[in-house]
Amino acid sequence: MSVVSAGGFLASGVAAGIKDNGALDLAVVTADRPVPTAAVFATSQALAAPVRLSAHNVGVQSGTRAVVLNSGCANAATGEIGAGAALATAEAVALRLGCEINEVLVCSTGTIGSRLPVEKILATLPQALASTSSEPEAGKQAAEAIMTTDTVAKQATAVGTGYTVGGMVKGAGMVRPDMATMLCVITTDARVSTAVLDHALRRAVSVSFNALTLDGCASTNDTVILMASGVSGAEPDFDEFVDRLSTVCLDLANQMAHDAEGASRVVTMEIKGTTTDQQARALGRDICDSDLVRASFFGGDPNWGRLLGAAGASSVPIDPGMFSVSYAGTLVAADGVSVESDQVALLARMEQGDFDIAVTVGGGTGTATIVTTDLTPAYVEFNGERS
Amino acid sequence: MSVVSAGGFLASGVAAGIKDNGALDLAVVTADRPVPTAAVFATSQALAAPVRLSAHNVGVQSGTRAVVLNSGCANAATGEIGAGAALATAEAVALRLGCEINEVLVCSTGTIGSRLPVEKILATLPQALASTSSEPEAGKQAAEAIMTTDTVAKQATAVGTGYTVGGMVKGAGMVRPDMATMLCVITTDARVSTAVLDHALRRAVSVSFNALTLDGCASTNDTVILMASGVSGAEPDFDEFVDRLSTVCLDLANQMAHDAEGASRVVTMEIKGTTTDQQARALGRDICDSDLVRASFFGGDPNWGRLLGAAGASSVPIDPGMFSVSYAGTLVAADGVSVESDQVALLARMEQGDFDIAVTVGGGTGTATIVTTDLTPAYVEFNGERS
Repeated sequence: MSVVSAGGFLASGVAAGIKDNGALDLAVVTADRPVPTAAVFATSQALAAPVRLSAHNVGVQSGTRAVVLNSGCANAATGEIGAGAALATAEAVALRLGCEINEVLVCSTGTIGSRLPVEKILATLPQALASTSSEPEAGKQAAEAIMTTDTVAKQATAVGTGYTVGGMVKGAGMVRPDMATMLCVITTDARVSTAVLDHALRRAVSVSFNALTLDGCASTNDTVILMASGVSGAEPDFDEFVDRLSTVCLDLANQMAHDAEGASRVVTMEIKGTTTDQQARALGRDICDSDLVRASFFGGDPNWGRLLGAAGASSVPIDPGMFSVSYAGTLVAADGVSVESDQVALLARMEQGDFDIAVTVGGGTGTATIVTTDLTPAYVEFNGERS
Repeated sequence: MSVVSAGGFLASGVAAGIKDNGALDLAVVTADRPVPTAAVFATSQALAAPVRLSAHNVGVQSGTRAVVLNSGCANAATGEIGAGAALATAEAVALRLGCEINEVLVCSTGTIGSRLPVEKILATLPQALASTSSEPEAGKQAAEAIMTTDTVAKQATAVGTGYTVGGMVKGAGMVRPDMATMLCVITTDARVSTAVLDHALRRAVSVSFNALTLDGCASTNDTVILMASGVSGAEPDFDEFVDRLSTVCLDLANQMAHDAEGASRVVTMEIKGTTTDQQARALGRDICDSDLVRASFFGGDPNWGRLLGAAGASSVPIDPGMFSVSYAGTLVAADGVSVESDQVALLARMEQGDFDIAVTVGGGTGTATIVTTDLTPAYVEFNGERS
């Protein structure tokens, strides 16, 4: 159930004092040698120093030996000093493990714009590396050490034919006094090449993390890393591997949605009728990024006019005359106009919490499923607090 | 100070019973003959029936004789029945005034997806047309009749060399149980051709209504209409005319911001350093559409990292190494990193309410000013109520 479920990996989580409250805030995940690794990163123009370093390292290395992750500070918008801090962290790990600097990846999450207390990380790294283990408890501590506004550690696993995929994620809505969004490390003991890992990871991320829209705010630090130790000896069927990897990613994404800052409901929206799946995904995100739509989710209001308004404003083509919407299985609009429905039963159903919405926007075969949460007064209160 | 400040126009506002509470909900603005008219509309794929009709009419007519506006129902997502209702309204006005149907423009605002009670409009139109007047009180009643969640009627005027520009607007944040956004009618007694009106209106709207971002949600019904009676005989200098028209539009836009749903502050953001002004405007809107940014405004938090995060995610190019931010005149970030500032004084200043932010994103000469409001728990409560 963790980042050490798959064979060939060790992990630990320790307290380096980056967080004020003494909580775990420094995690490492190591392999016994450099192993094939794929990664996807945020696409911001203002990428944090650790993201720039890790993206560079993944590009030039032949494998990853270790990932070091800290919470409490995103090391974003920190200029040359921040770049130096990320590099010093990688260098310290490489020195201890006897590997190349570019075989170490670095991830940070927390406040944007404040300086990373790299001296605390360097002082605590020996302890973090010395305490790594393949015990579930070690995986759990690593998952705890990357939490920011998360209220629970998030881990998942899936078993394939002769191999295991497991991972951890942090991310609880988005950012609070500037916590940068999501960090995820997934490991497998399948024997998979870097090229295949990369392909599989992009497929899995597109249907999981990239189908999750919580507040529409992009991050400077988002990172998903996938490492394959190969120690099981199993060479997986590609489709099965993508399926197991997607299972882990979806599980982690759903845990993020249920732990979203201030959210009271998780809403799963199925979009149908665009020309391509990609359009369906883009349209679903546009609809679920609308404050008015997400406020109506908060109110449990089957307010399909807001979905139409948001869809109409999207750059994805829709046919308003084919716009149809069901809330929790109850059809409320068909072919662009309201239809009679049992409002009392529907509202009672929506009072219960999470619900599904199905939206048809045209006659195409494109389809996508988007997971989102409601926009709540608690979210605004939470993110309105001064850092 | 109203839509009848300029010579050659009459207006009225009456209660047709579209709103449940007996408030004014039907307005007309008439000229004594078809006069040159320009208009801009929402760009949604799901335009409301009255928008589609008015856009068509403006395109084919040689002038506008009357605008009829109702609140209480947006007549959006109402299919063929809605199109018929808008047409019947225009037809009834044309019949009474003895003009062509396409010389009448129709605007609706209110709930999306519910049927327009056109029979109430048709029954009340004779009274509305019979009671038109050029008295200020008539202009005020027209401005009141188009209010939805607005708490005050919004009117403005400006005087040019020998002519007057005046207008009214409704719009209070955006949409509440699906109130469609903004309707605006501006009149002038200057002598201006349709082509020049059109050019001037687009210029004025781009620096006023289009520089206003309240919740980033686009509407199905947005309409801005500009009519020129020519009765003053003055043929204005183009630049002066654009200036006066912009003054009216900016005044109305600021009134909208101050009356925004649930907002506690109006924030004015100046963007500098893009290549073009258009990029600066697009970037400013992207930054101000971020929930996290607008939640930090609510908290009075000079949280420049969120501005950087939102700017980084924009498609407008920025140079993160040149990113500089001042809140209320106090520099908090320069060249991409935090700078020391008197936080106590700054926070005290921000407690006072409205504030300005200046953001530099690069070395270009592009610049824009965006007006927005904070995202508040009250906004979410307000828009989470069931319709």
